[in-house]
Amino acid sequence: MKKVVLGIDIGATSAKLGLVDSAGNILAESSVPTPVNTSGVSAADFVKSLCEAAFVLQHQANAPVELAGVGVGAPNANYSKGTIEFAANLPWQQEVVPFVELMQAYFPELPIRITNDANAAAIGEMVYGGAKEMKDFVSITLGTGLGSGIVVGGELVYGCDGFAGEIGHFIMTPDGRRCGCGRVGCLETYVSATGLKQTAFEVMSRRYFTEKSLLKAASFNEITPKYIADAALQGDSMALEVFEKTGEMLGLALANIVAFSSPEAIFLYGGLANSGDLLLTPTRKSMNKNMLKNYCKRTEQGQVVQEASTQLLLSHLCNKNGAVLGAAALVWHKI
Amino acid sequence: MKKVVLGIDIGATSAKLGLVDSAGNILAESSVPTPVNTSGVSAADFVKSLCEAAFVLQHQANAPVELAGVGVGAPNANYSKGTIEFAANLPWQQEVVPFVELMQAYFPELPIRITNDANAAAIGEMVYGGAKEMKDFVSITLGTGLGSGIVVGGELVYGCDGFAGEIGHFIMTPDGRRCGCGRVGCLETYVSATGLKQTAFEVMSRRYFTEKSLLKAASFNEITPKYIADAALQGDSMALEVFEKTGEMLGLALANIVAFSSPEAIFLYGGLANSGDLLLTPTRKSMNKNMLKNYCKRTEQGQVVQEASTQLLLSHLCNKNGAVLGAAALVWHKI
Repeated sequence: MKKVVLGIDIGATSAKLGLVDSAGNILAESSVPTPVNTSGVSAADFVKSLCEAAFVLQHQANAPVELAGVGVGAPNANYSKGTIEFAANLPWQQEVVPFVELMQAYFPELPIRITNDANAAAIGEMVYGGAKEMKDFVSITLGTGLGSGIVVGGELVYGCDGFAGEIGHFIMTPDGRRCGCGRVGCLETYVSATGLKQTAFEVMSRRYFTEKSLLKAASFNEITPKYIADAALQGDSMALEVFEKTGEMLGLALANIVAFSSPEAIFLYGGLANSGDLLLTPTRKSMNKNMLKNYCKRTEQGQVVQEASTQLLLSHLCNKNGAVLGAAALVWHKI
Repeated sequence: MKKVVLGIDIGATSAKLGLVDSAGNILAESSVPTPVNTSGVSAADFVKSLCEAAFVLQHQANAPVELAGVGVGAPNANYSKGTIEFAANLPWQQEVVPFVELMQAYFPELPIRITNDANAAAIGEMVYGGAKEMKDFVSITLGTGLGSGIVVGGELVYGCDGFAGEIGHFIMTPDGRRCGCGRVGCLETYVSATGLKQTAFEVMSRRYFTEKSLLKAASFNEITPKYIADAALQGDSMALEVFEKTGEMLGLALANIVAFSSPEAIFLYGGLANSGDLLLTPTRKSMNKNMLKNYCKRTEQGQVVQEASTQLLLSHLCNKNGAVLGAAALVWHKI
């Protein structure tokens, strides 16, 4: 029987499940709606519905499979304790949910691991993606917010409490934008789908009011990263400035990250990463400009070239079901 | 025979040597002048004089000793490669000095490890200091600049190139002070002996000119951190503001560091750390204020208390020969 790991990615609206083999093939997949705040569904009930969906899934694969473990990516998940703690986007935001313990009742013999989605993306990159040969890298997930997974010496950095790696909450400008975390100036208020929209409105608010721009046709509620990207690809000057500013802020943050753990590469993953060179080019420019000389390339004669040694890359999981792969990789990484 | 490790701390003016036992006792110590730029002394000559001093040292201990290894702390040292690379404060600033290789000729059988002084301080903290029981912590060395050593999962973070951990070069304010590294706004331009002096002059430049302050009697060349600290201890309002501002910037940086690796504790080491509560109190205040909720304490009912879980501590090596201990700990850590 083929060994597979059940990967589960729990999002705010649905949980995706997949049976993933050691090579990163998804043999079967399904989804379960994530309960909303007002539904009154308990965490135990939700775990039950996930496990029942998983039992069904095992019969949907083409060939018989043997389950080798369960990996879960979820917001505010704590790897060390196996819990989901005070997750703002789930109905149990006042609770510490003992997720692994609840699930273990259904899979008593199997290893079950949980971490947040951004950490899972990093492990996915290491097991199935562009970081297969790397020991030190950082994965940045650009979604509604900015998540991160930091790998040092081949292991994910969990910190003393299981919650390390919140690069999205680096305070970049103490008098900057208000963040959902209650503080001000966090990186993710600039570099994320939400941040991109806000920057679009900042750019429109500042430039000469008779200038034409496709951005002006969309309301704040309507505008999306894709809309801004499409405008930029058509040469819209304001839309291009939005990406320029976003890349400038991200590049500065990446230079600081390099000064911390000196990674071989930084991978961008998630919706915003799909804008490709629109984001990569200004980010790389700013990262190079802001990089400490120690981390820059040198000529054979030892002269510093103001260009980062750390590679900036798009995730190799961008066009796959990366979140489910990442969740499964949590277990495959340890087998 | 008692086993000892030779610890060497190479500074800009002198190199200190000590024979250190596993408990952190220094059984004998001496020093060798570091050659200056214009001396024409080669790196090989310098290594020779260090090794000769070490041979003499072995005969100065009270009882016979057996050398178990050599640990070296030096500016711009690369742990992975065993080199000192382009060190601005040493005469070989255009060179990559193969330090371990040169030294190995004198101690062919022994393990020889080299790293920068701030990393050595972190290892010293782990082996002999306040971090004995810790797996995740950060050590900040406040000298002329700001150095750092980051420990994750019980191991120092060296990164892909051996140069990780340059927290002093986090860019905090892109339009801030000019840094020796050629960039602008680095943390160490605010939080270091040099930064403290600059802040003293900033404070004097901004406050009402008839206000009295002890700071006004000292020139920029004369003023020292100790002078400012003594004034603050006498209640000098401007001097107190200097520490307040320094702590505010350091606390913000520490909050960002916690969002990266979520350490159990952060230790302050080096000259400026001797100012104790003058620096600790405003730093802790700012660190608490800027800390992401995930890393704050909670009441038993799960309510967030805006107070960092990460402890801010003074190094336990502050009043010892910490740099030599740290260098020796590099080897003891691996025995």
